[in-house]
This record gives sequence, C-alpha cells and structure tokens, in this order.
Amino acid sequence: MKNIRVVLVDRPNGYPKADNFRVEESAVEALPSNGLIVKNHFLAIDPAMRGWICDLDNYLPPVPIGSVMRSLAVGEVIESSTDKYCPGEFVTGWFGWQQYAAITPDAVIRKVSPEEGSLSLSLGVLGLNGITASLMLRLIGKPKTGETILISTAAGAVGSIAGQLARKAGCHVVGITGADEKVDRCVSEFGYHSAINYKTAADLGAEIAAACPDGVDIFIDSTSGHIADTAFKYMNINGRVIQCGTASVSSWTPLPEAPRRERYILTKRLIHQGFVAFDHFDLWPKVIQELSLLLKSEELVAHEDIRQGLATAPEALENLYLGRNDGKLIVAL
Amino acid sequence: MKNIRVVLVDRPNGYPKADNFRVEESAVEALPSNGLIVKNHFLAIDPAMRGWICDLDNYLPPVPIGSVMRSLAVGEVIESSTDKYCPGEFVTGWFGWQQYAAITPDAVIRKVSPEEGSLSLSLGVLGLNGITASLMLRLIGKPKTGETILISTAAGAVGSIAGQLARKAGCHVVGITGADEKVDRCVSEFGYHSAINYKTAADLGAEIAAACPDGVDIFIDSTSGHIADTAFKYMNINGRVIQCGTASVSSWTPLPEAPRRERYILTKRLIHQGFVAFDHFDLWPKVIQELSLLLKSEELVAHEDIRQGLATAPEALENLYLGRNDGKLIVAL
Repeated sequence: MKNIRVVLVDRPNGYPKADNFRVEESAVEALPSNGLIVKNHFLAIDPAMRGWICDLDNYLPPVPIGSVMRSLAVGEVIESSTDKYCPGEFVTGWFGWQQYAAITPDAVIRKVSPEEGSLSLSLGVLGLNGITASLMLRLIGKPKTGETILISTAAGAVGSIAGQLARKAGCHVVGITGADEKVDRCVSEFGYHSAINYKTAADLGAEIAAACPDGVDIFIDSTSGHIADTAFKYMNINGRVIQCGTASVSSWTPLPEAPRRERYILTKRLIHQGFVAFDHFDLWPKVIQELSLLLKSEELVAHEDIRQGLATAPEALENLYLGRNDGKLIVAL
Repeated sequence: MKNIRVVLVDRPNGYPKADNFRVEESAVEALPSNGLIVKNHFLAIDPAMRGWICDLDNYLPPVPIGSVMRSLAVGEVIESSTDKYCPGEFVTGWFGWQQYAAITPDAVIRKVSPEEGSLSLSLGVLGLNGITASLMLRLIGKPKTGETILISTAAGAVGSIAGQLARKAGCHVVGITGADEKVDRCVSEFGYHSAINYKTAADLGAEIAAACPDGVDIFIDSTSGHIADTAFKYMNINGRVIQCGTASVSSWTPLPEAPRRERYILTKRLIHQGFVAFDHFDLWPKVIQELSLLLKSEELVAHEDIRQGLATAPEALENLYLGRNDGKLIVAL
C-alpha cells in the first residue's frame, strides 16, 4: 500500500521554513507484531515542533534528517495485531506527518471517542494545547479570585484556552497578541478583559501597566523575548511566571542576551517555572474529561484553522511562527 | 544620654563604600510610650544591606539619607515602658547601627536566651543566615538523598550552613567560593564534597561539570552574574534554582545583560524562585530551635568574623562585597 509522508531534509537556521521538509512517496511499513496501522485524519501543527527539529538539548531527541516529521495526529485504526486496539477505533498519538503510520501501542496516547466532537479537537483543546493551558494553571499558576493574569500569544491554541479558564477562575485577564483582529477576538470570544497588540503598541510597558492596574500575579510566557522582558517589570510580589514556549526567539545558538531578571526574582519572590504537558500523562484523562464537558456546555470555545492536504503541513508550520494562523493549526488529510 | 550612630550620607554607585556612611554623636531618643530602649551588643553586616540603601524597588523601602543605617542587632533592654520586655532581657531585631535604640515592640524579632550561646549567634546561624539556609532548602530546594546541590558563596554565612544541612540531607554538595582558604574550609569544616575557587578556575563550567558528574539538581544562587550563568548550563531536569542574593552584580541600573535562560527553564522544567527569610517570621522559632540543637550537639559549625567598635561597621560592609571576611561579619560594641 502506498504511503505519502513529509520528511525533514535539513535543520532550520532560525524559524522552520517550508523547504526544510520534502513530501515523498513510500510504501506503508509492515504491520508490527503487537502493533497497529493508523490512517491519519488530522495532523497537528505545534510551536514545539521547532524544538524537535533543532539539534539542541530538548525534552525529546531531535527528529533525524530524512525521517518522517514527528507530530501528534489522530486517525482510524485500519489494521491491528494487538488486543488493545481494533480496526475502526480512533486513536491519537505520535503518528507523524504521513498518511499511514505503522506503530506499536506506545505511540498511542489514547483512544478518541466520536462523542467528543470532531476528531481534530483531540489535537488542540482536547489534546496538547488544552491540557497545557489547564495543567499549567492548576500546577504552577494557581490563580486566585481577583488576581491579574497576563497571557502572551493570547489568541493562540494554548493562550485562548488559558484565558477562558483564568476568567472562570475569577481573574482579571489581559492578553498580548500580534494583530488587531486577534485583540478583538480575545475580548469578544475568549473572555479577556482587554488585550494589547504588541506589534502596534508605542510603549508595551505602558500598555501593560494600564491594562493591569494592580500589577501582574501570573504571566504565561510562550514567547520569551521583548514581551517577556517587559512583562517581568510588572510582576507583583509572589508572582508566578510560567514558561510554556519561547516562540519569539528565532535561534538559541548562541544564547541571545537580555536584561537580567535575578533582582526581580529575588525582591519580588517570583517563581519562574517551565511547563511541558508530556510530563503529566497521568493527568490527561481527567483534564480531557473536564475540558470536554466545558466544550459541550459551551462554556469554552476553541478555534481551529484547518488546512487541506498533507502537502500543506510544512507551510502551515512556517505560517505558525509568523502568526499567520487563525486558531489551532490542523492539517486535514 | 549620649548615643553614637552610623548614618547613611549618600547612596552607593555600585557596591557600598565606607564613605557612604558617617559616624555621628546624638542624644539617645526618648523612651516611646509602650516602648523600650536597647543597648546594642552586636550589629549585623549583611549582603542584603546594599539593597536597603539603593533607591530601587526592594522588599523594604530604602533607608533615607541622613538616617541611621538599618541593621539587625542584638542587645540588652535597659529601659522599658511596655509589659512585653523587662530591663535585663536580651532581644534581637531592627535596632540599627547605633549604641542605643529607642524602639517600639514591632522592631523586636524575638527575645534571645543566653543559653543559646553567644548573643552574636542570633545575628547569623540562629538568625537571618541560618534561617535563610534552612528554610530555602525546606521550602524550595527540597533536597533528596543522592541529589547534587551547588552552592555559591559557599563559605559565607548562609552558604556554610546550607552546605552542612544539605550534606545531612544526603546530597552530593559542591561549593563555589572566591579564595583557596575558603575552598579548604568548605571541605574540611562545612562538609562539602568539593569546592571550586571561581577566581582561579580556568574554565568554571568544566570544573562544575567535573565536580557534579550527575548534573545539578539544586543551585543556591547568591551571586547572579557569570557564576549563575555558568551553573544554569548544568541544571538537571526538574532542577530548582534558589535566588537568595545577587552579590556579584554591582549595579542594577540599568539592568545588566546576560544570556537568556528561558530555553533552560522550559526544556528542563526548572523552578527559579526568590527567597526572603523575612516572609516567614512564623517559622523562625521552630527553625531557631532546630539549629540551636544542631549547634549544641556540634553537628553544625558557624564561623564569625567579629570586628570591634561601631565605627568599623561601614568598612566591614565594604569588605563584605570584596569577600574580605572570614565567616559571618559582626560588629561588637
């Protein structure tokens, strides 16, 4: 059986570009013993992918050159040699940017029920992004009623969920994003009290100060860079800074320089902590159930930006770092 | 009655200098209603003092120009108009660099019993430094048997206690200090497995790597600067960095630049947290009791560098930032 897959051809110098990848035809690999073959329906496009294709220390080893691009995906089991999964079931997991994935069960994260809604939701709000938003608030941010939370990439797949959950927790919620239409959406759809377009702000610090008159108790930093350096100035005593991404820094070799933060960390007794959702697979089922209920009761909204066809994946990834997406980026096969 | 006191005459541009202060004679202030007058026996010289005399945001307001220098001290109550304290009792608290302090009870931290040993210990191992060492390990570091802890200013008033407590907790304990005789003392007296002289190290990173073959789980950063930037590279996944001082950075206006750390924070899920012992006065009595027992049973040693006479205080503070001290700096009156 014919497979089409997207492989990594070289490592980006900075942000990923579409031409770091190549679409190629191959045969579907043989069904492993005690394994399964999944026909992918949707592929995820995630900010973390840059880290996976760079040759730097990370929480996962780099994708080898010439290999299919690592990706979360969701699809249907079409062949199985294991008791755990039957043809016709839907699963999400590490299936890569390809039509068919021949895998062992350790690549599966979970079965997906069509009752959850569109299968694609398991890659966003009911997957990595929603779980990241929910767990980083619960485990690190610990929002309290009346506290102020500042969220970068506020309209993105993680930020938009975090903003809604923080609002439900009784916080004053302020977003930072990169386009006026995203500012509007933050306020009209995602429950932010206000949002700032950092690209057009004459003085980002002054705008943060105005939007956060009581200072910032929780800062969700998915960008690093100038936005983060500015936000640190407005942190309150006992504030929490959650590092869940570094999207604005195009290269980490050599390490870019920035103003030191130790004096803020010390005098304001800040907690600055990194968060990776893959550390907490044990908590995923519970969080997915909670988020699923919120979606069904329409207390939570999730935007998806669905591109058509496997060949659009590399460009979709390039778009992601340029902010050229309108919600969670997904590729439909 | 005549008082002699040391007042702040201007704010340092960088590290404090002796001539930022002036010794002057004045009258002892009147006994406040519901207050007390303390005759100081010992004054503390603390790294935090630089922060207290700068005109920057801090956890305490800056000492006003022309005012007596803020300081922890220990002495004898010689007059009292409050039920809480009687003449002849010993107390430690915020009494300033002066012979006699006329204060209200909120300036007192606690009564000191002569059974604890020398009164001066209440300014170091049984005061701010010992409590900082103990509580920052307990509340943030959470050392586990077999973990590696790296401690800067390893032979100092805080570091020397932290090193001993971490060794008792079963850690592999490595110190960084600035003189060969301090390296020797770390190993021979304070229980460090090894220590590094950062001033003579040809390659500090290589020496840290050699001394910490399993990486660093806990880093106590009291210096910031190059030492901290280097130590961050060797942090393990789920490592904890405790910011308890910033001694190596002479000025924070403007903020000095340094390599960004967000990528370490994220990919290694580090916790970088500030610690100020004054946030935890409720825990002080319990910790002092524990440390006092360890001192009595000789499971803990504390070095003091005691200077004679109030007029030596400004130079002692200048010496502190130059590393020209041999244990906890104290001024005896």
